[in-house]
Amino acid sequence: MNIDQFSTTELQSELARLQAEYGLLRRKNLNLDLTRGKPGTEQLALSSALDGILRGNYLTSNGTDVRNYGGIDGLDEAKVLLGEILGTEPSQTMIGGNSSLTMMYQTILFALSEGIEGPESAWGNNDTVKFLCPSPGYDRHFSICEHLGLEMVVVPMLAGGPDMDVVEQLVAQDTAIKGMWCVPRFSNPTGCVYSDETVKRIAQLGSIASDHFLVMWDNAYAVHAMYEDAEPLASIVSHCSDAGTLGNVFLFGSTSKVTFAGAGVAFMGSSTANISALKAHLAFQTIGPDKINQLRHVLFLENTHTLAKHMEKHAAIIRPRFECVLAALEAELAGTGMGTWTKPRGGYFISFDSLPGLAKEIIALADDIGVKLTPAGATFPYGKDPLDCNIRLAPTFPSLADVQASIEAFVVCVKLASVRQKLG
Amino acid sequence: MNIDQFSTTELQSELARLQAEYGLLRRKNLNLDLTRGKPGTEQLALSSALDGILRGNYLTSNGTDVRNYGGIDGLDEAKVLLGEILGTEPSQTMIGGNSSLTMMYQTILFALSEGIEGPESAWGNNDTVKFLCPSPGYDRHFSICEHLGLEMVVVPMLAGGPDMDVVEQLVAQDTAIKGMWCVPRFSNPTGCVYSDETVKRIAQLGSIASDHFLVMWDNAYAVHAMYEDAEPLASIVSHCSDAGTLGNVFLFGSTSKVTFAGAGVAFMGSSTANISALKAHLAFQTIGPDKINQLRHVLFLENTHTLAKHMEKHAAIIRPRFECVLAALEAELAGTGMGTWTKPRGGYFISFDSLPGLAKEIIALADDIGVKLTPAGATFPYGKDPLDCNIRLAPTFPSLADVQASIEAFVVCVKLASVRQKLG
Repeated sequence: MNIDQFSTTELQSELARLQAEYGLLRRKNLNLDLTRGKPGTEQLALSSALDGILRGNYLTSNGTDVRNYGGIDGLDEAKVLLGEILGTEPSQTMIGGNSSLTMMYQTILFALSEGIEGPESAWGNNDTVKFLCPSPGYDRHFSICEHLGLEMVVVPMLAGGPDMDVVEQLVAQDTAIKGMWCVPRFSNPTGCVYSDETVKRIAQLGSIASDHFLVMWDNAYAVHAMYEDAEPLASIVSHCSDAGTLGNVFLFGSTSKVTFAGAGVAFMGSSTANISALKAHLAFQTIGPDKINQLRHVLFLENTHTLAKHMEKHAAIIRPRFECVLAALEAELAGTGMGTWTKPRGGYFISFDSLPGLAKEIIALADDIGVKLTPAGATFPYGKDPLDCNIRLAPTFPSLADVQASIEAFVVCVKLASVRQKLG
Repeated sequence: MNIDQFSTTELQSELARLQAEYGLLRRKNLNLDLTRGKPGTEQLALSSALDGILRGNYLTSNGTDVRNYGGIDGLDEAKVLLGEILGTEPSQTMIGGNSSLTMMYQTILFALSEGIEGPESAWGNNDTVKFLCPSPGYDRHFSICEHLGLEMVVVPMLAGGPDMDVVEQLVAQDTAIKGMWCVPRFSNPTGCVYSDETVKRIAQLGSIASDHFLVMWDNAYAVHAMYEDAEPLASIVSHCSDAGTLGNVFLFGSTSKVTFAGAGVAFMGSSTANISALKAHLAFQTIGPDKINQLRHVLFLENTHTLAKHMEKHAAIIRPRFECVLAALEAELAGTGMGTWTKPRGGYFISFDSLPGLAKEIIALADDIGVKLTPAGATFPYGKDPLDCNIRLAPTFPSLADVQASIEAFVVCVKLASVRQKLG
């Protein structure tokens, strides 16, 4: 029954029941954590063969000794394998260290302070630099913007990606807008996959935006489907080739959620000219990334076919956790009017929207009984969710039993906050 | 016999002899390279046990799973082991990725653009920022300064380190001077070890320099002695404790020339406050370094005693190469007045000074017969050696036979250029 149809008396008796339930939960002294998109131990164990996989062979096919210095853009073998995930050619691909976040930060800082096409192209030459932030989105993207003084402009997220009518209007009107964040497949946190039409329109932004506009295409969950029939993502590289706009797009990926979260391999792609410019820029701060770990990954992941098989093993581990959350939300909250949520077919998150004004309260209620949730507002620029309703649920790291206990506690908190609000 | 004592006739006959010798060398079609301080294959093989050393155990003593995200300042175990090399406590130590150059760049960029003690401390608030560069020195230090617009001021290198009379005078006079590069043990390229007195005086610079002055203490060759009796380095951390100036010093090190040049572990130290500030700054660009590789290194290197044993194996491999170069220089050039050179007891380089005005010519002569040397000027800021005399010799990477062939060719080039110069 929908909460709007409850009489005051019914609400009051429901409140009493929920308070009792909440009290019972408190007495359990829970210590649960649904905050971050971390792979669980069972997932990490899928890649334990990485250490030792080289069996003493540190040479690549062209004779490079991966133990020694050099090779700022990474191994050719890794460019072929990981470039295929992005859809970029080896000359359009760069392989880095263990963090794609670092590559994104370096790219933005380079574009801002030095200019990817030389000093005159530096965004910093302008008084104000703005960035489009489809929201809810990824907090660490927003932190980069805030830290570097890029003014964030919220764009609504729809089921098929950012609202492109809004995006196109904004970039055509406002020359201060120099870029846009995208997590195009199994977006963080909504889990949506950008539609073909959205990808095509994003690829064309370079033609309508101001000079030196960059799409930051963080394809973090490119191969992270939980179901065989999960929607594929259109190739932005193909659309850019048609539009002649690959220079306006930087693509990013990593194996952090393929192999090891803290010791994977990050990679990026863009036009050959952009990659060359970035290489020259990075040469001042490093002699090169860890090529040994790159070679380990090439041997371990082999090709996109074996990679897909490997990802099926991840899916088998995390799918029950997602289904557990979705089942509890469906059983307890469907039709109640107390919230809506996404049903992702891949990625690491479920996005829950409570009634307006309740996210902070629900998260505090959960915290009080030992269930940690991502802080309210984290999915919006400057940590400010205008409706105070979005909550990101990350079910991969805890055990299935803990996910179950967490989501049971969560729905009680959602109901308690909702009923209290209705009672005013 | 000294070249100054040759008559013109003698010089002419010597020239003819040298030209013939040079012609013979040309016909050998040599393909040799003494340019960079890279470990050789035999050295790299000393650490081949690193891959596979974990044997499936990815947990640290406190239960951290090194495969997962987190730990921006690195593993506690690594801080203990590698902090001991720097002389810093774990709370004063940060363990990074594979590149100490990256840590140096990040430190300088942070001090310049954001300020280690907050925005008001940012060097960039001043119109001009200068850096002291003891020279000859390390080209990549100078490149960082040039890239970031720090004006470099050359300070002479003496046998016991930088000329501290000059340094103290400069920092006391010029408030635009915000820092100084140091490679204190087996300096690149002279191989000198800073004297106790020099270390003490550098530790005290924080008291006489302008605010937010930083010593960049790149102790790249801290444990890289070639002889048991090699001079130790005084502890700058102790001297800083006495002077209350640890906040003015950042120390750096790496295992690039201990284990794998491209896949070692970099580390740094400073005051606890500085390390905390840097951690907060780095949190915007990375979730953390590769902790798996850190754990591998902790297991492989164990403690400073076993580390020293490991370094003796490196010494046994590279010592003959250094002795080969020094023997050839001694046999062919001692007493000729055609050059002077350093006799390092550790590190990766020998620094050779030709007669003024000849370094470029000697390097070109060598290049013409297939012997690559570090470009002339590379050891000075802006690539400008005021006397055009310094040549950095790096004998570790080639085989002993190649080192022998290279240095034989080199002395012919030195003599040829010197005799031609005398003949005018």
